[in-house]
Amino acid sequence: MTDPQFNRIALIGIGLIGSSIARDVKELGLANDVVISSRSAETLKRAEGLQLGTHYVSSAAEAVKDADLVIVSVPVGSSGAVAEQIAPNLKPGAILTDVGSTKASVIAQMAPFVPDGVHFIPGHPLAGTEKSGPDAGFAGLFRDRWCIFTPLPDTDAEALEKLKAFWIALGSRVDDMDPQHHDKVLAIVSHLPHIIAYNIVGTADDLETVTESEVIKYSASGFRDFTRLAASDPTMWRDICLHNKDAILEMLARFSEDLAYLQRAIRWGEGDKLFELFTRTRDVRRSIIQAGQDVDAPDFGRHALDPKK
Amino acid sequence: MTDPQFNRIALIGIGLIGSSIARDVKELGLANDVVISSRSAETLKRAEGLQLGTHYVSSAAEAVKDADLVIVSVPVGSSGAVAEQIAPNLKPGAILTDVGSTKASVIAQMAPFVPDGVHFIPGHPLAGTEKSGPDAGFAGLFRDRWCIFTPLPDTDAEALEKLKAFWIALGSRVDDMDPQHHDKVLAIVSHLPHIIAYNIVGTADDLETVTESEVIKYSASGFRDFTRLAASDPTMWRDICLHNKDAILEMLARFSEDLAYLQRAIRWGEGDKLFELFTRTRDVRRSIIQAGQDVDAPDFGRHALDPKK
Repeated sequence: MTDPQFNRIALIGIGLIGSSIARDVKELGLANDVVISSRSAETLKRAEGLQLGTHYVSSAAEAVKDADLVIVSVPVGSSGAVAEQIAPNLKPGAILTDVGSTKASVIAQMAPFVPDGVHFIPGHPLAGTEKSGPDAGFAGLFRDRWCIFTPLPDTDAEALEKLKAFWIALGSRVDDMDPQHHDKVLAIVSHLPHIIAYNIVGTADDLETVTESEVIKYSASGFRDFTRLAASDPTMWRDICLHNKDAILEMLARFSEDLAYLQRAIRWGEGDKLFELFTRTRDVRRSIIQAGQDVDAPDFGRHALDPKK
Repeated sequence: MTDPQFNRIALIGIGLIGSSIARDVKELGLANDVVISSRSAETLKRAEGLQLGTHYVSSAAEAVKDADLVIVSVPVGSSGAVAEQIAPNLKPGAILTDVGSTKASVIAQMAPFVPDGVHFIPGHPLAGTEKSGPDAGFAGLFRDRWCIFTPLPDTDAEALEKLKAFWIALGSRVDDMDPQHHDKVLAIVSHLPHIIAYNIVGTADDLETVTESEVIKYSASGFRDFTRLAASDPTMWRDICLHNKDAILEMLARFSEDLAYLQRAIRWGEGDKLFELFTRTRDVRRSIIQAGQDVDAPDFGRHALDPKK
């Protein structure tokens, strides 16, 4: 148990991310009060059933009253609406942050509503799984994962340090970035991979010559890896696509161009070009493992987990 | 221990697949003699060091002498050369099989060399990891995985049953398929996923606006999943691309067409189209888990394995 860092924290949205924060805050004793709000009555009830906070209210505006830290964890397309609702009740001196996967759009949506005296510091913990909802969260989700902040030009340094200390307490490593650069980085490390995964699963699902049951039966030969990302929350990912459009379209164009080159090499039997790429990409994997960003166990260690093994 | 199914098994090639077969055969006592052959002196020495077989010879032609079952586990592009080398020494009545990921090409390469009286039955165990070489294999790799056979029109039914019994002893589920259909199925469930993974890792590696260290640092947000497949053996995958060209090009064309549709939906802000696809793909994941073809643990259960957690 640490000393509480905040008297009252308000969590707006209690899905995978919000509920993981709630669990960490509770476990670490980082706040006296944790007010949870969800626009879904069912989700709110479930959060209460799981005892994720100390207070539960359906209205986001109610939830933020007297809160020293407000964390908005909703699909990025809802950021503006939430900011508008909570703005009148934000306490002077409070820190307002979010966890959205796109930053320029979230800033554009939220900043206009933030009253003077409230410290709005956009943030993005790079953590999650393909599951969603309050049951999917778990304590420790953010441990050793990066949390990127995209402070605004007038962000108060002390407030930023306070927010970083909070995420560090959750186990995160913290980084600052320009919002536009964040959106480019995320477009390649997260958004493009998800879009590609959704796309290939869709392609496979639509085939006429190979049945769906064959795709499923034989999926362990590679395909199943993509289905994990393609099982992520549809609302969240629809919003990301719509709110990081420019960076995503740029990365998609590059990806398609590279794929056309690869396709041409396959068509013309240019084995050396294929071999060169396939060798180079191996090194990237090695670097990721060395950086502690993935497990080294073959096949993500699935064999160790599979109950049948 | 089972009774030996074969007096002598010859394993031509002792990488991930060959060495996993060797380990199973040894553990289960499926043969009296296991002759191992590799064209790489280093690999052969390592196989001997690991005590994977009972005899070790550098010449594939030597290895197959008196063998009742010959399993060729080499990159598919080498199938023809291996068949030519071993053909004169194959024992009448022996079963000759392979483990290649493409079947029409392997048949075209090997069948012309197979002498009368030898039962050539192409096979493909759908199992593996991103690691390669004799150290990467392990007993149990084939357990609950499918092994597909693409028998030729004149394949001896008894020999086919004998070969299937062998794979069943290794824990595999067995299936028959037409070679052309096999190649189409594998193009979507295995070859396209690998090519896409190689491609996206290459795209990320080539960016100028996002540094490679950023890609690695933040890879846990999706990208790292692709790096696993993109760390697979380059020779093996070059050969697959070259030897299943038609089916791969067909699947690539469909994938690119679907991606263009998705890209257009992103550009024009058509959230409903994105949401529809992202919802549909979730069901595919669910079916794969229900079919026992992947673990249900979030994030492939990485959190459970990560030593830092």
